[in-house]
Amino acid sequence: MGGVTVGVLGATGAAGGQLVQLLLGHPWFTIGGLAGSAATAGQRYGDRMRVTALGPAGGAALPAAIADQILRPALPEAFRDCTLIFSALPAAVAQTVEPAFAAAGFGVISNASAFRMAADVPLLIPEVNAAHLGLLDQQQQARGWPGFLVTNPNCSTIHLALALAPLHQAFGLAAVQVTTLQAISGAGLRGVAALDILDNVVPFIGGEEDKMESEPQKLLGRLDGAAITPADFPISAQCTRVATTHGHLETVAVKLHTPADAAAIRAVWQEWQPLRGRDLPSAPGYPILLREEEDRPQPRLDRDSAGGMASVVGRLRPCPVLDWKFVVLGHNLVRGAAGGVLLIAELLHAEGRI
Amino acid sequence: MGGVTVGVLGATGAAGGQLVQLLLGHPWFTIGGLAGSAATAGQRYGDRMRVTALGPAGGAALPAAIADQILRPALPEAFRDCTLIFSALPAAVAQTVEPAFAAAGFGVISNASAFRMAADVPLLIPEVNAAHLGLLDQQQQARGWPGFLVTNPNCSTIHLALALAPLHQAFGLAAVQVTTLQAISGAGLRGVAALDILDNVVPFIGGEEDKMESEPQKLLGRLDGAAITPADFPISAQCTRVATTHGHLETVAVKLHTPADAAAIRAVWQEWQPLRGRDLPSAPGYPILLREEEDRPQPRLDRDSAGGMASVVGRLRPCPVLDWKFVVLGHNLVRGAAGGVLLIAELLHAEGRI
Amino acid sequence: MGGVTVGVLGATGAAGGQLVQLLLGHPWFTIGGLAGSAATAGQRYGDRMRVTALGPAGGAALPAAIADQILRPALPEAFRDCTLIFSALPAAVAQTVEPAFAAAGFGVISNASAFRMAADVPLLIPEVNAAHLGLLDQQQQARGWPGFLVTNPNCSTIHLALALAPLHQAFGLAAVQVTTLQAISGAGLRGVAALDILDNVVPFIGGEEDKMESEPQKLLGRLDGAAITPADFPISAQCTRVATTHGHLETVAVKLHTPADAAAIRAVWQEWQPLRGRDLPSAPGYPILLREEEDRPQPRLDRDSAGGMASVVGRLRPCPVLDWKFVVLGHNLVRGAAGGVLLIAELLHAEGRI
Amino acid sequence: MGGVTVGVLGATGAAGGQLVQLLLGHPWFTIGGLAGSAATAGQRYGDRMRVTALGPAGGAALPAAIADQILRPALPEAFRDCTLIFSALPAAVAQTVEPAFAAAGFGVISNASAFRMAADVPLLIPEVNAAHLGLLDQQQQARGWPGFLVTNPNCSTIHLALALAPLHQAFGLAAVQVTTLQAISGAGLRGVAALDILDNVVPFIGGEEDKMESEPQKLLGRLDGAAITPADFPISAQCTRVATTHGHLETVAVKLHTPADAAAIRAVWQEWQPLRGRDLPSAPGYPILLREEEDRPQPRLDRDSAGGMASVVGRLRPCPVLDWKFVVLGHNLVRGAAGGVLLIAELLHAEGRI
Repeated sequence: MGGVTVGVLGATGAAGGQLVQLLLGHPWFTIGGLAGSAATAGQRYGDRMRVTALGPAGGAALPAAIADQILRPALPEAFRDCTLIFSALPAAVAQTVEPAFAAAGFGVISNASAFRMAADVPLLIPEVNAAHLGLLDQQQQARGWPGFLVTNPNCSTIHLALALAPLHQAFGLAAVQVTTLQAISGAGLRGVAALDILDNVVPFIGGEEDKMESEPQKLLGRLDGAAITPADFPISAQCTRVATTHGHLETVAVKLHTPADAAAIRAVWQEWQPLRGRDLPSAPGYPILLREEEDRPQPRLDRDSAGGMASVVGRLRPCPVLDWKFVVLGHNLVRGAAGGVLLIAELLHAEGRI
Repeated sequence: MGGVTVGVLGATGAAGGQLVQLLLGHPWFTIGGLAGSAATAGQRYGDRMRVTALGPAGGAALPAAIADQILRPALPEAFRDCTLIFSALPAAVAQTVEPAFAAAGFGVISNASAFRMAADVPLLIPEVNAAHLGLLDQQQQARGWPGFLVTNPNCSTIHLALALAPLHQAFGLAAVQVTTLQAISGAGLRGVAALDILDNVVPFIGGEEDKMESEPQKLLGRLDGAAITPADFPISAQCTRVATTHGHLETVAVKLHTPADAAAIRAVWQEWQPLRGRDLPSAPGYPILLREEEDRPQPRLDRDSAGGMASVVGRLRPCPVLDWKFVVLGHNLVRGAAGGVLLIAELLHAEGRI
Repeated sequence: MGGVTVGVLGATGAAGGQLVQLLLGHPWFTIGGLAGSAATAGQRYGDRMRVTALGPAGGAALPAAIADQILRPALPEAFRDCTLIFSALPAAVAQTVEPAFAAAGFGVISNASAFRMAADVPLLIPEVNAAHLGLLDQQQQARGWPGFLVTNPNCSTIHLALALAPLHQAFGLAAVQVTTLQAISGAGLRGVAALDILDNVVPFIGGEEDKMESEPQKLLGRLDGAAITPADFPISAQCTRVATTHGHLETVAVKLHTPADAAAIRAVWQEWQPLRGRDLPSAPGYPILLREEEDRPQPRLDRDSAGGMASVVGRLRPCPVLDWKFVVLGHNLVRGAAGGVLLIAELLHAEGRI
Repeated sequence: MGGVTVGVLGATGAAGGQLVQLLLGHPWFTIGGLAGSAATAGQRYGDRMRVTALGPAGGAALPAAIADQILRPALPEAFRDCTLIFSALPAAVAQTVEPAFAAAGFGVISNASAFRMAADVPLLIPEVNAAHLGLLDQQQQARGWPGFLVTNPNCSTIHLALALAPLHQAFGLAAVQVTTLQAISGAGLRGVAALDILDNVVPFIGGEEDKMESEPQKLLGRLDGAAITPADFPISAQCTRVATTHGHLETVAVKLHTPADAAAIRAVWQEWQPLRGRDLPSAPGYPILLREEEDRPQPRLDRDSAGGMASVVGRLRPCPVLDWKFVVLGHNLVRGAAGGVLLIAELLHAEGRI
């Protein structure tokens, strides 16, 4: 682990646990301290964290140095040895805790939804809108924070936005329809009861459709001076939960401003390398992988592509109602949460902000 | 079982097996003979049919009179004791077998896709387009058949079309977007390998999207003299397979010609009783059931509504891209296949055509 | 619903909810009042109960008369209109609540484990040890209760004990090995997190093995005067949780005192009708159903046999280590819980104790 | 890939596909040729092999050099460029094909069951009975084969035998009871239909119990001169199929000749390193991993331990019927099949037999 000491808030949840795993062996960041919920402060991390529920390689033991960490309270004074804070807190808790850390001088990168749509808080996907970090000066000034707060989008938004960004840049989006088939780990380690999802689909995820219908426009918006003008196209989202462990799959249809044929669309996806040359350790070589098979992408087969950091698209074909339709899939806990905040941190570090 | 003696072709498959179960105790129809694939002719039905794989009540034993039936070849001369033929054959087999039966004087009601889009063959949902039976005279004349052929739509089409029909009648459809989450029994008893679907979604079902993008327009079309003019609106379908046993769920968005508010849409669904007074034994009192909960319909909870013969809709809300979006769910083997052909047969019987 | 007014404690859980469903239309019993957890008192039952999660027919609406019941506190004074109390409480709560009801004069039939092994409390399966009700006089005297308490065994124990009872009566059991594959509903409506069981098996269920290794001997024991002498044979249990909604499957091996061939074992199972002539409404005609197929019983196909009240056995074959091995399966929420307490109540009623 | 050129028969199945993946980058072996079923000869491997169905990392593309291989017929003359043949053929095909290759001078290592119990064919687990390779001289003489045939046990047997071997060596086994909960990939890529296993358990796997009740005794037997005397203890097996992708879990009870306490049993498992110092590339450091948690091992969490080459044991506790009971789990396609034959090959190579 590397030179910047980081703290992780919400480290006992699905996203936080995944983040701890990604931080092990990270070349730039070293885990300094961990916090779970208020009830867990003072307990040993290895005793609280059902880290193994996260995946097939879960059997891998946590290093003793991490497992033996004593969980701290989620208070700035408990993280004085850290310079950067990752927050995987629930939104309601994040609402008060994250500003407290920023006010205490920490850089905070959050996976929570609490501040994503705040006008002076960047909602960031490094490949999509790195320039939005320009909001931070404005944010620090307006809020009087020595630290700052950057947010990571919703896990379904991220993969949709990655697939849409190069299309928007090349052809201009006029409208987007999306239906999601989301994995159970997106609801946290115990968020979905087995009896609710086995041999079943739940066509509702609280708050999810609102996020998907507003976050992408901010992500694809333009930073004009001190404010972001969101991209001007409507999104309609229908979100469902299905019986997969990890990997959100989305069926998407788009209307474009500039007509494009399939070859042009494929080309903009395949050639899209906005972070090329930045040497961010967690950045995939190509953020979008295009599968050629008629029945891909599939969650179990494709979610771990590029270590879970890529969005995998496939089945591009004309849409009789809008212009084109396709399927996109990505790992909800890696690129969709823990890997997303980590990549933001790497970008901030590369830009000298941490 | 009642007075009309019927034969079932494809009786050893998922749809055929379901049909045999629905025919047990039917007030109008009695099973006269059964045929499976060519290889099964001469075998005992009870030895071939894994009827119990069809559902939770599968443990119920087949009556000996049915289980002991010897499977016949799918030839007209083997079914001389029957007046009506139900076909649950694969499309490729149906292509030649169904015309042979119609030419030999049988009324044939088919669940196969082979002739659904033929200009002189009714594609029928009794609640939606009973008037299309007027095509039969034309069909018999043109083909020189003493018998006739009527077809049942695709299992996903049926529930979509049921939900769309009253909207089209009341407000006029201008465009439809649909994504399906289809159950494994839709692919037949052994159609989906467990290793392909456990912890997975397969975003492709061969031929399914084409069917969903063309059958509803024929169903909602107008019979003008001797031809059907299909309804004039585009449908865009994305079809996926998920790990549910039975029950296809569909997320739908629609654009209407005449603006309608939620109350109006709900009213046309809830008041829609096109078969009222017809006394068809398998017809649900209300073909469309509206659930009020924010997370319904769900496959395991709602697929058996009205004995599997209803389409269950829910989650009606405005669509930022088209006008309205909602979720519809229905049993793919009951109303979507076996129950669908049975209801057609009941309509034909009530109209004196059998 | 019939003449005896009953109360249900724990009515918002899986077993309690199932019991409410079984009581609808019961010829002898009428629901008088319902209690959930302390937190739910004063709320409307239909708002609290996710009754539909219980099964495929769950879409069936609760009658308004039940859905509109206001949940009561689990206190004797709140159930004065009832003469019989069913308890589906958690063991820790049952520990104090059930004696309070018995002390207040109620007959209590409990699905909880709290008092199952108490010396003066009958642990009852009507077909197996109806004579153990003789303990009740002793119980009322010793405890000074005007009411009484009878308990229903663990959901896995019941089906094992049903399969073992006729063997023990006919041949004498010398030893039993059992491995269970238990359904998720056995842990309650939210007891198993989806992420823990999808594509997984959990080879541990807290307290379950202890129950299975001690309850059957009490059930098969002899009432001598005022005490039960447990049957004298060891049981070794290994309990696992698998991804099935309902239906516990158990692989069993037995050693017998009197040698028996397969035909003799099959005969004692198939002819066993200990409740014959008692006319208990919920009693299956034959408590044990024997399947002949090489791959049965199976949870999805056989759990609903005889309305979920039968135990289904199959695969009887010699055991190279003990004498015989076989598979038994039964519905954990019906006969294994709600149906079990209901059948006990029917027996008590038939015997004039209620 | 290394210096010995190998051929793989049955390369398009689950075990064969897994073997191809394990051979990529192997330090000693290089893939020379591949054969699938007769029907596939002449086709491109990458077009036939649904290699990605094997696991979460399946998205990884096959190297072009492998994907572009043209499938050969399973005939010795088609594999002249190879010195070693791995067979993952179905038993019925292996019956004639494997002897043909051995007669043609090839060393054949087979995962098929056809010859496992033949008196002159080693059934081998390198950690358990490497000495049984002494049978090969006898085999070659008796059969007149310039080549030879070694077999790998059944996928469930392997993990049972690994857990039993050190117990047998230390304390002597007197009896073994085992119930398996086997993954769907154990039946091949399309061996289990989804409709048969979703929300279900199938308590029957054809031939499996016979294998588990006879193979371990041969594995733990003694080579006396030219014959193996099987270990003299009975095994009783009950085999079930559950809805897991990979990883067979087994509940085991054992009776020992020499009494042992838990500490002694744990010690023999944990210290067991029979291949120590052999430097076989695929051998796990410790073939048996002991988990301490009360609810482990679990398929999804533990199947990939030591790259899928270890057997994971847990839940050791006294057995009221025999002496001790425990749970063992292992990857059915890696150590249980492809990894098993590979480790045998490495042993043969280390011993100079290839």
